Amino acid sequence: MKTREDALALDRDDPLAPLRDQFSLPDGVIYLDGNSLGAQPRASAARAQQVIGAEWGEGLIRSWNTAGWFALPRRLGDKLATLIGGAPGETVVTDTISINLFKLLSAMLRHQAERAPERRVIVSERSNFPTDLYIAQGLIEQLGGNYELRLIDDPADLPAALGADTAVAMITHVNYRTGYMHDMPAVTQLVHDAGALMLWDLAHSAGAVPVDLNGARADGAVGCTYKYLNGGPGSPAFVWVPQRHHAHFSQPLSGWWGHRAPFAMQPGFAPDPGIARFLCGTQPIVSMSMVECGLDVFLQTDMQTIRRKSLALTDAFIALVEARCAGLSLKLVTPRAHHQRGSQASFEHPHGYEVMQALIARGVIGDYREPYVLRFGFTPLYVRFVDVWDAVETLRDILATDAWKAPEFAERGAVT
Amino acid sequence: MKTREDALALDRDDPLAPLRDQFSLPDGVIYLDGNSLGAQPRASAARAQQVIGAEWGEGLIRSWNTAGWFALPRRLGDKLATLIGGAPGETVVTDTISINLFKLLSAMLRHQAERAPERRVIVSERSNFPTDLYIAQGLIEQLGGNYELRLIDDPADLPAALGADTAVAMITHVNYRTGYMHDMPAVTQLVHDAGALMLWDLAHSAGAVPVDLNGARADGAVGCTYKYLNGGPGSPAFVWVPQRHHAHFSQPLSGWWGHRAPFAMQPGFAPDPGIARFLCGTQPIVSMSMVECGLDVFLQTDMQTIRRKSLALTDAFIALVEARCAGLSLKLVTPRAHHQRGSQASFEHPHGYEVMQALIARGVIGDYREPYVLRFGFTPLYVRFVDVWDAVETLRDILATDAWKAPEFAERGAVT
Repeated sequence: MKTREDALALDRDDPLAPLRDQFSLPDGVIYLDGNSLGAQPRASAARAQQVIGAEWGEGLIRSWNTAGWFALPRRLGDKLATLIGGAPGETVVTDTISINLFKLLSAMLRHQAERAPERRVIVSERSNFPTDLYIAQGLIEQLGGNYELRLIDDPADLPAALGADTAVAMITHVNYRTGYMHDMPAVTQLVHDAGALMLWDLAHSAGAVPVDLNGARADGAVGCTYKYLNGGPGSPAFVWVPQRHHAHFSQPLSGWWGHRAPFAMQPGFAPDPGIARFLCGTQPIVSMSMVECGLDVFLQTDMQTIRRKSLALTDAFIALVEARCAGLSLKLVTPRAHHQRGSQASFEHPHGYEVMQALIARGVIGDYREPYVLRFGFTPLYVRFVDVWDAVETLRDILATDAWKAPEFAERGAVT
Repeated sequence: MKTREDALALDRDDPLAPLRDQFSLPDGVIYLDGNSLGAQPRASAARAQQVIGAEWGEGLIRSWNTAGWFALPRRLGDKLATLIGGAPGETVVTDTISINLFKLLSAMLRHQAERAPERRVIVSERSNFPTDLYIAQGLIEQLGGNYELRLIDDPADLPAALGADTAVAMITHVNYRTGYMHDMPAVTQLVHDAGALMLWDLAHSAGAVPVDLNGARADGAVGCTYKYLNGGPGSPAFVWVPQRHHAHFSQPLSGWWGHRAPFAMQPGFAPDPGIARFLCGTQPIVSMSMVECGLDVFLQTDMQTIRRKSLALTDAFIALVEARCAGLSLKLVTPRAHHQRGSQASFEHPHGYEVMQALIARGVIGDYREPYVLRFGFTPLYVRFVDVWDAVETLRDILATDAWKAPEFAERGAVT
């Protein structure tokens, strides 16, 4: 891809190009932040109107049965499972990643306490998304201090961190900041060899890269629907547990939606025999219903096709940035090796925050992550090769002209 | 109210009558189930379209700042607080009642463990909504069995159940099944006199009856926005904690939204100094945004006006049922005394399920609660006196003609 014409030619040959029309994207924007909040499927607005008007407004309470609201977490879970290698009945869409992590970590620690009480360490990475670590810390504090969160600083340190004391390895498959991707089958095997359980966070994987949880024999996973899956702002997260663990994974957020007979109104809790035991309370139906609109776009293609374009986009972006912005203080932090790269490209810059604000002001939307990182997400369903070309030209201009030094770009918002 | 004309006259004089036009209600339906799922404020559909179209579709990731999404749980919490006697900065709209109960119970038990470790009993009612009990059970199991859930069978047994071993009393202000309402100031005082903390569940109180949490010196509360507050199906719940407890209530669902600097991406958790420490993960923005449409209707009136009409509606309904359905096997289970009654009227019938299905088939929508209870919720913002009249006439006809014995009314749905 040496010219803008090359980029346009790649877009003409792109098998995913027709799917772009199924998204509503603003004029004048190159959107490279679908890894933070996915773009809006055009079907979402109509779906929300149906839920609000016909189902809520007209159907009222009856819609819990007639519109299938009560079954929604399981039905959407089964649809989502096809993207992550889950079997039917193993996934529910519900709550948030943080809360689902709490459920799953609790269940895994409890299971280990029953079969191997000496296993009291959760192994994770210091570079993990902070909420994963915060949840582990909150759980450990609640359990009374006999547990430990052991953080490694480099993926290569994982074998040494695992041992006879390890209960769970909680790893995010694709790092939110650098885009580093773990080898899911190899890491899972390593963790199992140490006698520990493997919990994957798929926040930056579901809809971004091919995932085969059952193929890797993972023990549990959580993930997000509002990033690559385009479910809408804050749309509910998901939790996956393989069928073989259902009977012996029990979790403390034992609300009525996880009961085997929620409407029998019994005073004692008895968990659902299947994945519904990971449900807790009543779900936000309008936000949840739109998750399906995002999933339905994926079902028109497959993750291998998406992966091919994702790597082509990030390859092209990295090559162009390094060619066009040479000597302008950018340093790639995303792995060059395909097997270690998610669907993003991140560069450090000493004034990354200001540079990103200048980019956004010119319509190139990525985001900034502390410290120093300019993060660009590539979502093959709606990002084009010409977007890559134009984004790099804008980045080059901002850096070459010092446009990012304008004072307005130093001002910090609540969410950066 | 002796005739249908009397009912129409009461509606003409009703100061709340103009607010009914702000709701979308289906033709041919008398909706007496707003205590399970509130009706749709007309503003909700437009608000959702704004959030989905302009904010998500056009604003994309920028809307976390520019559309105020990040501040939404606190901003809506402050608006809601005016209905329950909370001060600004004491309430957040977030997650579900079940999850918020887990947070608050955990925080209270931890606080008691630090200052009075011998207090290890949670006192509640066997007739409480089951999820409250399930959550207490799940928490106690997680904490390792040194705690106890002590259930009373009658409100009069509360004084005897409280003692030097009591950590928390967790009481639902208005019972979901019978509509029995506790005396919030008196019960709170009783619990405080025993040295325990008072946690109120306001699921059937917020927007239903006047509540003054700070006036009663309560220690924490949770509640629902999709019932009387008309937030939409499964709209997020709320949690209230008085300012005096913020510094020493910490909770284990310590996700990034509860961190004092969520975007600093620090690996160690440090809670927000205020009510935001009860937040956890990213919230469903579309469902949450519609909560405001429901609250905005309440801000055009006041809870005293709503309460006056609520009592008039339930008084009229009870009197009419007892007059018109005498000898037809209905037994009132809702207290006759105003100070003990929420905003519903419940009757037991040996075939309550079938009778309710027959009512729904004729457009009179209440609901059924195990065992035996026909439950009718009265939401003064949109229920009229003529609805009371017509509902009772339909009920009388169904009972007097045995219409409920038709086989289709015995079939059970997933949600009843």
